[in-house]
Amino acid sequence: MSDNKETEISSLGEFGLIDHLTKDINLANSQSLKGIGDDAAVMRYSDTDVLVTTDLLLEGVHFDLTYVPLKHLGYKAAVVNFSDIYAMNGTPRQITVSLGISKRFTVEHMEALYDGIRHACAVYGVDLVGGDTTSSRQGLVISITCIGDAPADKIVYRDGAKDTDLICVSGDLGAAYMGLQLLEREKAASVGQKDFRPKFDGKEYLVERQLKPEARKDIVKALDEAGIKPTAMMDVSDGLSSELIHICTQSHTGCRIYEDRIPIDYQTAIMAEELGMNLVTAALNGGEDYELLFTVPLTDHEKISKIEGVRLIGHVTKPELGCAMITRDGAEIPLRAQGWNPLQ
Amino acid sequence: MSDNKETEISSLGEFGLIDHLTKDINLANSQSLKGIGDDAAVMRYSDTDVLVTTDLLLEGVHFDLTYVPLKHLGYKAAVVNFSDIYAMNGTPRQITVSLGISKRFTVEHMEALYDGIRHACAVYGVDLVGGDTTSSRQGLVISITCIGDAPADKIVYRDGAKDTDLICVSGDLGAAYMGLQLLEREKAASVGQKDFRPKFDGKEYLVERQLKPEARKDIVKALDEAGIKPTAMMDVSDGLSSELIHICTQSHTGCRIYEDRIPIDYQTAIMAEELGMNLVTAALNGGEDYELLFTVPLTDHEKISKIEGVRLIGHVTKPELGCAMITRDGAEIPLRAQGWNPLQ
Repeated sequence: MSDNKETEISSLGEFGLIDHLTKDINLANSQSLKGIGDDAAVMRYSDTDVLVTTDLLLEGVHFDLTYVPLKHLGYKAAVVNFSDIYAMNGTPRQITVSLGISKRFTVEHMEALYDGIRHACAVYGVDLVGGDTTSSRQGLVISITCIGDAPADKIVYRDGAKDTDLICVSGDLGAAYMGLQLLEREKAASVGQKDFRPKFDGKEYLVERQLKPEARKDIVKALDEAGIKPTAMMDVSDGLSSELIHICTQSHTGCRIYEDRIPIDYQTAIMAEELGMNLVTAALNGGEDYELLFTVPLTDHEKISKIEGVRLIGHVTKPELGCAMITRDGAEIPLRAQGWNPLQ
Repeated sequence: MSDNKETEISSLGEFGLIDHLTKDINLANSQSLKGIGDDAAVMRYSDTDVLVTTDLLLEGVHFDLTYVPLKHLGYKAAVVNFSDIYAMNGTPRQITVSLGISKRFTVEHMEALYDGIRHACAVYGVDLVGGDTTSSRQGLVISITCIGDAPADKIVYRDGAKDTDLICVSGDLGAAYMGLQLLEREKAASVGQKDFRPKFDGKEYLVERQLKPEARKDIVKALDEAGIKPTAMMDVSDGLSSELIHICTQSHTGCRIYEDRIPIDYQTAIMAEELGMNLVTAALNGGEDYELLFTVPLTDHEKISKIEGVRLIGHVTKPELGCAMITRDGAEIPLRAQGWNPLQ
């Protein structure tokens, strides 16, 4: 948040700022007909269904600019929306970006934020097609809407899981949450210190998972190439436990997952040890992993086992069995939605 | 903002609040396949192009809850998005609603806000298909995205105005701005007074235009029925002057409008008189009218003259003539974009 050159946003005005930030944006997708500059963006989706998701991020609630660089924040704000589209087995195509900007932000700050958003768009092949920019009395407000598509017969909802389906998750869990704990710890340690240098050695993965998450485009592609259509899918944003309960509730099923099958990175384990936190609790309830949680028919067992980066963690059951985890010593613990509650 | 029964939002949590506010929402449009409850909403637009627009409204910047009832605010927040879709000559079909809610709001407050949003959806035939709800440290945040559609050959952009086209505007201008002045005046008068009753007698129209604007669905329909496709169109949200300059800049034209042709309601005129404000300035720069400003070929003159609620205010010129208003005494005054700047 400190720059040498600083340009007040009021010197450009709303339209000037938008022009400045978006002047060289090109539309890459054939579905994007008209981007920024009219009352609405225009798209064409003749052969596929349209997917729309939206996320609202508020300073002080969802991000802390004392340790989140604006460029990373822009990247993450875009990627978490892409993740929702992939979780429908779709492809993100466009985003709109609305910003509320308080007086302490400069044009250079907004350039950094937009750099991150545009970098995410470039990496994932998404067009920035519109938005709204206004002043805010209370810090930074970011509202992103993502539009994507999928052939009608490819869309995967949360409610399609069936008894005996296999439960799979991509990547590993709990690292983003541990990254947040680490960043908060270093922030606390920095108070009142000059030239403070945070200690991230050997924990770079945790910081990256928190500050610069990726959406699992690769997994959606791999599933498609393997000829697998999940029966239910969602992304893990509020924690595995909470998301599993969503799928099972909407699918009218129960589930069993196995503690020793939950994928956890060693840095996550070391950090939990250092902080005296329960590792499995962190992996179950941590949130912000943006991995894909999905179910596939039992008959896809062989195919799914061959996909790199996907772990089979349990199976779907009849609803009367409820949702539970089998611990390493064989005990059955009911799953609870203890994920982050943004309204408390 | 005062209710007898008050339920803390934290008692429901995010998912509980969303369930509570959206439990009996049905999808009315055939294009809406899946609404609230998954990672993304799903729509189908096989034969038409898709339009997307978004607006971010922040407490203290865009609305003042001391005189804006939450139900009206919800209605207006939805309608201003519909207006953008109509301004493309399209039909709004779906909205997503993201809310940031600070602790002083109760479940009943959010019910009132949602009542307004849902009423607007019912009046305009729009489905509420998704959104995001979170806490806010800084008052109420409302981000609405509207999805609409239009046949590809019906969409009207801002850049199609041609030399000699007629410039038309629906309804009347400046009333919403005068309504805001009136509300602010009464708010100031109420300070420190118990049982204060604001004086709105004979100025109800101004208050309504400010608090409960409508989108000109009727005008879009009338144009279609008359076989008129505007060459350029936008809605008047930032003031006639600013919007005319947008159309002329994007269309590479100039324009002449006539002071005595600008439609102004008598309540607007009386209020301007009372406040000692220049009436035409208010009508040119007031903003929030949500009327439609559009251009039609000269050959449509007869057809357009028959449409009720549409006023012909001038004509498009070659670009070198610039944008100007001809006053009642024949003077030519350059138009300036003096509309409300949300970043100052």
